[in-house]
Amino acid sequence: MSKPKLRIGLIGTGFMGKAHVFGFTSAPRVFELPFDLELHTVADITPEAAARAATTLGFAHATADWRSIMLDPAIDVVSITAPNALHKEMSLAAIAAGKHVYCEKPLAPMAADALEMTLAAEAKGVKTQVGFNYLCNPMLTLAREMIMAGELGEIRGYRGLHAEDYMADASGPYAFRHDPAGGGALADIGSHALATAEFLCGPVTRVMGDLVTMIAERPDGKGGRKAVTVDDIGRAFLRFENGASGSIEGNWIATGRKMQHDFEVYGTKGALAFSQEHFNVLHHFDTAAAKGRQGFRRIEAGPDHAPYGLFCVAAGHQLGFNDLKAIEVAGYINTIAGKSPEPFNFRKGLRIQTLVETIQASSKAQGWLDVV
Amino acid sequence: MSKPKLRIGLIGTGFMGKAHVFGFTSAPRVFELPFDLELHTVADITPEAAARAATTLGFAHATADWRSIMLDPAIDVVSITAPNALHKEMSLAAIAAGKHVYCEKPLAPMAADALEMTLAAEAKGVKTQVGFNYLCNPMLTLAREMIMAGELGEIRGYRGLHAEDYMADASGPYAFRHDPAGGGALADIGSHALATAEFLCGPVTRVMGDLVTMIAERPDGKGGRKAVTVDDIGRAFLRFENGASGSIEGNWIATGRKMQHDFEVYGTKGALAFSQEHFNVLHHFDTAAAKGRQGFRRIEAGPDHAPYGLFCVAAGHQLGFNDLKAIEVAGYINTIAGKSPEPFNFRKGLRIQTLVETIQASSKAQGWLDVV
Amino acid sequence: MSKPKLRIGLIGTGFMGKAHVFGFTSAPRVFELPFDLELHTVADITPEAAARAATTLGFAHATADWRSIMLDPAIDVVSITAPNALHKEMSLAAIAAGKHVYCEKPLAPMAADALEMTLAAEAKGVKTQVGFNYLCNPMLTLAREMIMAGELGEIRGYRGLHAEDYMADASGPYAFRHDPAGGGALADIGSHALATAEFLCGPVTRVMGDLVTMIAERPDGKGGRKAVTVDDIGRAFLRFENGASGSIEGNWIATGRKMQHDFEVYGTKGALAFSQEHFNVLHHFDTAAAKGRQGFRRIEAGPDHAPYGLFCVAAGHQLGFNDLKAIEVAGYINTIAGKSPEPFNFRKGLRIQTLVETIQASSKAQGWLDVV
Amino acid sequence: MSKPKLRIGLIGTGFMGKAHVFGFTSAPRVFELPFDLELHTVADITPEAAARAATTLGFAHATADWRSIMLDPAIDVVSITAPNALHKEMSLAAIAAGKHVYCEKPLAPMAADALEMTLAAEAKGVKTQVGFNYLCNPMLTLAREMIMAGELGEIRGYRGLHAEDYMADASGPYAFRHDPAGGGALADIGSHALATAEFLCGPVTRVMGDLVTMIAERPDGKGGRKAVTVDDIGRAFLRFENGASGSIEGNWIATGRKMQHDFEVYGTKGALAFSQEHFNVLHHFDTAAAKGRQGFRRIEAGPDHAPYGLFCVAAGHQLGFNDLKAIEVAGYINTIAGKSPEPFNFRKGLRIQTLVETIQASSKAQGWLDVV
Repeated sequence: MSKPKLRIGLIGTGFMGKAHVFGFTSAPRVFELPFDLELHTVADITPEAAARAATTLGFAHATADWRSIMLDPAIDVVSITAPNALHKEMSLAAIAAGKHVYCEKPLAPMAADALEMTLAAEAKGVKTQVGFNYLCNPMLTLAREMIMAGELGEIRGYRGLHAEDYMADASGPYAFRHDPAGGGALADIGSHALATAEFLCGPVTRVMGDLVTMIAERPDGKGGRKAVTVDDIGRAFLRFENGASGSIEGNWIATGRKMQHDFEVYGTKGALAFSQEHFNVLHHFDTAAAKGRQGFRRIEAGPDHAPYGLFCVAAGHQLGFNDLKAIEVAGYINTIAGKSPEPFNFRKGLRIQTLVETIQASSKAQGWLDVV
Repeated sequence: MSKPKLRIGLIGTGFMGKAHVFGFTSAPRVFELPFDLELHTVADITPEAAARAATTLGFAHATADWRSIMLDPAIDVVSITAPNALHKEMSLAAIAAGKHVYCEKPLAPMAADALEMTLAAEAKGVKTQVGFNYLCNPMLTLAREMIMAGELGEIRGYRGLHAEDYMADASGPYAFRHDPAGGGALADIGSHALATAEFLCGPVTRVMGDLVTMIAERPDGKGGRKAVTVDDIGRAFLRFENGASGSIEGNWIATGRKMQHDFEVYGTKGALAFSQEHFNVLHHFDTAAAKGRQGFRRIEAGPDHAPYGLFCVAAGHQLGFNDLKAIEVAGYINTIAGKSPEPFNFRKGLRIQTLVETIQASSKAQGWLDVV
Repeated sequence: MSKPKLRIGLIGTGFMGKAHVFGFTSAPRVFELPFDLELHTVADITPEAAARAATTLGFAHATADWRSIMLDPAIDVVSITAPNALHKEMSLAAIAAGKHVYCEKPLAPMAADALEMTLAAEAKGVKTQVGFNYLCNPMLTLAREMIMAGELGEIRGYRGLHAEDYMADASGPYAFRHDPAGGGALADIGSHALATAEFLCGPVTRVMGDLVTMIAERPDGKGGRKAVTVDDIGRAFLRFENGASGSIEGNWIATGRKMQHDFEVYGTKGALAFSQEHFNVLHHFDTAAAKGRQGFRRIEAGPDHAPYGLFCVAAGHQLGFNDLKAIEVAGYINTIAGKSPEPFNFRKGLRIQTLVETIQASSKAQGWLDVV
Repeated sequence: MSKPKLRIGLIGTGFMGKAHVFGFTSAPRVFELPFDLELHTVADITPEAAARAATTLGFAHATADWRSIMLDPAIDVVSITAPNALHKEMSLAAIAAGKHVYCEKPLAPMAADALEMTLAAEAKGVKTQVGFNYLCNPMLTLAREMIMAGELGEIRGYRGLHAEDYMADASGPYAFRHDPAGGGALADIGSHALATAEFLCGPVTRVMGDLVTMIAERPDGKGGRKAVTVDDIGRAFLRFENGASGSIEGNWIATGRKMQHDFEVYGTKGALAFSQEHFNVLHHFDTAAAKGRQGFRRIEAGPDHAPYGLFCVAAGHQLGFNDLKAIEVAGYINTIAGKSPEPFNFRKGLRIQTLVETIQASSKAQGWLDVV
């Protein structure tokens, strides 16, 4: 009557490492999962850091050598929240060891790497997941369901956005996110806008990019300056397979914005508007409403919007960012149990990376490109 | 180097029982707590339900007899999320056994009971906490700090509210919340508005109540009808010790409202406005702002507003309702370790119950009453 | 084929005098009125001021003696926008001369005066109007129609408000609005909240008042200080004839608020929420909406909401405050032509004054009072 | 002591014709103008319609022949609100007759025509104005002043929008706005987004357009169908002379949107956000605000924001769309008197038309184009 165990190895203990742990510990208490989850081993840079993280986060074992996680036959799932540049090497090692891999976004700095990782995972038959964070929101699920059910009619126009200001200060130092291989606002957060766009409206077939560098150099951390070539703002026009057109923007110098992951989608019968700043709300316009009574309706997340009700039996109480991570984890665990297809697997991560790179190439070429 | 253990016994596994577990499991991963928390025993109505809850929620032991929790010397803290009518008996038993008690709101149906519980706890020297849910929000902490620091100047006016619609449907059956002993909208949610009012502005000294029953009878669940005498809407005028005046309303028939726990507070130098519907935001008006540039500023919760940063290193991601419970738990654990005074102990619960009953009495007497 | 003329005499050329002129000049261009309106004579304190106002505002004649307007047989309608204390004398003179009277709010400082004015007007058979400003908003008309048509079901609860901050600065001098005869926040702007409450929900039958003076003295303008006894905040609990209960607040020290004339009304089938800060919008909750699609709908004013379409053929362009005055004027002109009953006549003004004084008396008596 | 007269001839009596009359009649009562304005002659299609309009709108004379207005030496200013296709012929005739010309937007269907009109006006020395409607908003003036004064620091990014839904219904008939010469969403309302962009951030130097036709044919009004080739959505990437980049969108099939003329502008020191749906409000983020107190501030229009105070002495009462037209008229009248430069003259109208056509050409060429 007791459930089989699923043992977790975690690499990285920063923002996202912690978020994974929140997910692994909350998910089983919120959802009826097919496995018992066990926080088995955590890896960090030094033995001391790893030991401390094990105590704080609740892992049984600690290591300063992430490879030992891959070698440990007890471990079933590897969570990778290390810097982006390491995602590929770690993932390939985990896949080779037959472990399921849950990797933070972006899957890899370059699409070619993401492709290699995807093919490796598919060949080995392990279950993969990329952490897209925002897509597991019940209100996004609602939006997608409404669109798929035709409640908006045919989709005509889309406007997506992910703007923050964490790079707005020109005195902030050059960092790994400024690396020409995989860096820039479009790759870092525009990718979220692209993921949401396809989640809601289906495949993008053609793009025209516009990437702009506004802060041309930054302190190099050693008293000098270093040139920055990646985009601070990345824009794109989009064409969707369903006939709609749209645009997105990724912007990390949007002074004052903390979480402007927004979208508006317009169809023949209705429209939706959403802002991640109030992510428990979805605004819906329905052309079928009575004359003089029309308008955007503010739908608040509640038990009618699964799986909200598992967190809280009453509407309006609101989920938080870490709750979205718990939903993400639960989806992945069910996938590992074969209960559902992989919702956001490596191939999806590859897809987004391909979109990003096609937009980058389009911007360079100053012309439209097909997404292949 | 390992921490001492604190073993938890939980009574009740509904909405609030689950929320306590979320709190106990999240808090140690978010905060540096002085204890390791162990989910020891869970009590539910039947052995089967208790066993199921133990598995789902992660307790080592299960029982259908809540008294066995009190008898178990291994257990340090008892969480009580059983129906309100049982709070007193359970709490007194736990206190008698020398256990710390974390009891859901309201502490007891009647202030007299709450007083007895409070005195028992104080005599025994155990640490107590009442679960007020909304007060641990970093934005409420910010509001309180701003008021205390004089950023608003002298406080002049207050408007508080807690309105929902869970009793708006007149065909909903008579339930324990309709019981004249301890029931009604003022007691059930107006109490939250009162707790927030005193949290922000200090003691209320005088009240004038207005309680109204709009749905005079409800189905009794046995095919008949039962008269309802408790209030569906409870209003009060308030006088504060600091010289300000104000009003609150508790309303459980506010059609369409899910979480209208709002306040506005006006001082000589500024004002604050808040709605629990977007509880990661606080609106601030500052009279010192430049001419032509004044207005309410929308402050988004972020790492500048402790302990937000422990959940998430970036502003704008938002905490959820269950995160507030984790903060509540962490505060209590620190209290048990003697690291901080009890923030929301039984005496505070008694205080709110006293306010509720004074307002009820005032409404009945149709006149102002001092709060004693 | 040309229309009969209606000649206007205006007393007072301040904020409201100008607003009347805006109304008189816009209304005929927006509405098909039964009269041609002629700006005949304007009265101000001095001949020079009057002459200047005549030029600026477009009147043919000017006078420093308001009584000459009453004596001039050419004048059909007298607009009174002089200080409140003069409303009575001016109105009675105009009525005695058989002129229609359009008087700014409040009709008179005291209900007894308002009664005398009302009876005089009714005896003489002239048409009267009190300028309530906010009631002519198409969105308030919509709200009233929805309530009357039963779209909200039975009304259960009401929350009204009119808060501004024009008296928040304690260094502001003692002014006519602080006069115990007719002054105070409740009389000055709480009266608007009362007018809106009855406009939407019908007669108030019983009140409990709570008036508070927060700034106990002000500069007297002569280097000294003068005690203030009128309310800075005036609150009331309300009972309506239709069975609902509610509350209102008038507050002129609400730091940061410029036009918080808001209401929320809750019925068995729906709810409405409104803020004058965005007065071209009405929020509507409908319990009949589909599960999972419910929420407050943001209805924007447009041609479906008469008479918006006469100002602008497209929704969303928005009316301004002065447009509301044009609607008010048009209603009055049609009333004079016998085309509609008086929408906001002296009796209505008397009614609001009676409510104000009953609430004031109730606050003094610290008990509920019937509105007679 | 009396002012010189300025006699107005108006062509067209629809939405915008009426708006001009509102402007001409309100402006003198709001502003101290250097002229007395006289509504002299109105022209409409038939003598009857013109006569009716004269009566309703208050003109002394009526004509069915617009050319007679040009021939009438008494007339000083000609207001042109006839269909776009006639703007050129009418304007040239008025200019030839030495009259000042106030022409509705767009100045002409094609930039070449607008250029001819501009050169003719400049050669003749008459004062011209194009009715841009939204630019005279005190909050836009404030935004521009803040930007010019450096309150936002260096401008980095801009996002502009004008979306409505008046063409969203595919069963709506083919109309003059669908004419390939001058039609389409970009020309019709995207032009407003462009005008606002340059008003705030200065010249656009380079564009990349993306125009999309979503409703490929419409009823031709004679029982058949007619192909539509103009854009339903027109997007553009922008480069500004000041170094910033940005984007705009014009969209007339944005289901549910009535007046989404919005912008966001991001600088090194601050940001502004605005929506025409609440055009009396400007949101301002200031990086200089104290830690933990930062956020977008909601500035409400008031007397600090000229010329708001001339309409209303108190903040928060709000201007309406027709008030903006009065400000536009006042600016023009002062220009005619030589008191100020032409704020929005034909050359500005030409400029916007040039931007529109460059974006159209860019979209066709699928590449970036310089704005010449």
